[in-house]
Amino acid sequence: MTTTLPVFDTGAIETAATSRMVLDTVRDALIAHAEGRTSVPPPLHMDFPQANGDCHVKAGWITDTADFTVKIATGFYGRPGSGMPSHHHGLVCVISADTGQIQAVLNDRGLLTAWRTAAAGALVTHAMARPTALTLGLFGTGEQALLQAVWLAELRPISQILVHGRNPHNAAALCEELHKNGLPARPASARQAAGSDMIITTTPATAPVLDAADVREGTHVTGIGTDMPHKNELPPELFHRAQLIATDDHTQCLHHGDFGHAVRAGATAQDSDIAAGLLLKTPPDRPDTAITVADLTGVGALDAALASAVLDHLTR
Amino acid sequence: MTTTLPVFDTGAIETAATSRMVLDTVRDALIAHAEGRTSVPPPLHMDFPQANGDCHVKAGWITDTADFTVKIATGFYGRPGSGMPSHHHGLVCVISADTGQIQAVLNDRGLLTAWRTAAAGALVTHAMARPTALTLGLFGTGEQALLQAVWLAELRPISQILVHGRNPHNAAALCEELHKNGLPARPASARQAAGSDMIITTTPATAPVLDAADVREGTHVTGIGTDMPHKNELPPELFHRAQLIATDDHTQCLHHGDFGHAVRAGATAQDSDIAAGLLLKTPPDRPDTAITVADLTGVGALDAALASAVLDHLTR
Repeated sequence: MTTTLPVFDTGAIETAATSRMVLDTVRDALIAHAEGRTSVPPPLHMDFPQANGDCHVKAGWITDTADFTVKIATGFYGRPGSGMPSHHHGLVCVISADTGQIQAVLNDRGLLTAWRTAAAGALVTHAMARPTALTLGLFGTGEQALLQAVWLAELRPISQILVHGRNPHNAAALCEELHKNGLPARPASARQAAGSDMIITTTPATAPVLDAADVREGTHVTGIGTDMPHKNELPPELFHRAQLIATDDHTQCLHHGDFGHAVRAGATAQDSDIAAGLLLKTPPDRPDTAITVADLTGVGALDAALASAVLDHLTR
Repeated sequence: MTTTLPVFDTGAIETAATSRMVLDTVRDALIAHAEGRTSVPPPLHMDFPQANGDCHVKAGWITDTADFTVKIATGFYGRPGSGMPSHHHGLVCVISADTGQIQAVLNDRGLLTAWRTAAAGALVTHAMARPTALTLGLFGTGEQALLQAVWLAELRPISQILVHGRNPHNAAALCEELHKNGLPARPASARQAAGSDMIITTTPATAPVLDAADVREGTHVTGIGTDMPHKNELPPELFHRAQLIATDDHTQCLHHGDFGHAVRAGATAQDSDIAAGLLLKTPPDRPDTAITVADLTGVGALDAALASAVLDHLTR
């Protein structure tokens, strides 16, 4: 009668998932989202001002699949001056879309979100960059910057990675991590990094991290850090110069992505974007001199797809 | 590093909780809510039309306490004619309001919601009914009807329970359950049940279940079944006759409670209600001939209080 709910920790999740499985799953989910085969309700949000914390609950479902997910993520950043470190916690509940039964809890501490974000960035960057693009400029020095580069390198060769971070120690540390993964990398100025063939920005910036004038013709730029209205990584002028703009979710990117900043600045039209998932299905026909931009704000249906795939591996 | 998240099933939860503990916790939480010491964000909602199902996610926090909760509840009612039975599932995540750490999952399958709903109904009914009220009219024959009566009987003597249900078999079955709990009960017509000293309605009705003219002076009525705008248990005329109206949450009851129906019908003023929690702190000074009404739509902060209290017992 009261069977215990299966709970899987990060160790089990890491064992069950391969980068290939994550990439394939996220690819299919982005296509499903672009084709309107997903259901993503408005998220639930709570603030904890006394501890500088917040809690987001996001749900998602790919409408022709067996399970949906409810994901809880908390970020607590400590009171200024309290010396309290930042905390991030999270779990994903996998729930049957046929019976409502809760199948399992993936106590992933945000791992699946990091994976699907990195996979989406790598997939879209690979699909939109010209085939001859070889160098990568990375803005930001966190876990996402590392994952994006490593997974993009699974999809195409990278000859050089230029890492730009505000903190030189963090940039050097990321380069060391990239070396461990067999990738050539060195710290660079924002201008140098912006001169790469491919650019991925993974920062929590609230003002553009690069100058559009430093971006050369033929470059592809993917922004993944802007997930709230007050954040902004990519300058509106970059969207103005772009010949192809992709968004993972039009409404979301208009509301709180870099695309929205560019539209509100009058740099591009509100209907100038196409769904990133469509480019994964049919690669774009892009001139070698075109600048292309992808704005990825994160789609809840990807959580559902990835959590279901991981759970399948864990319980098969 | 990857400690397993504690999960507690209904068996453990039932062992940890006593009706006294639930009543005390819910009483304090209703008072906290009335005094503005709670945080309850708009819920997340998802529909699954292909299986006639839905999923609600509700969060709540009593702002001077250590934990908040995120509650997931699903109701899947089967396709009409599919012969598939209804399913209800649910769990409660207890999360630290200081660090965001997920402390435990209470895999309660909706038990805590049933308890806090019953406790709120019993507490408010007891506080608002005149001291000499002895008979109880119960509308509805489900688990909530049973719990409401049993817990009200813990707070004050009940000389007779008249049970009204649309299905006579269900009404008889509930009377048998009430007998097992030492309570005198018998099936009755709506008119008979409406003539009781105290009335509690626990139905999913979409039209009033009783005639206001059948309610005598000095009666207290508590409605707990109306939790969506299209539902309606209590007639507007009852609110018009009432000298005291209480709501567990003014905004919520206005939006999707019986109180809202009465206001929109012009039967009572939009500001005619007082917070139920205040009546638990300071019992109302009510004439013996007054009709009093409580509209309870369910407050998310009660989940937080009850789940925390249960978890304390489970882990202390």
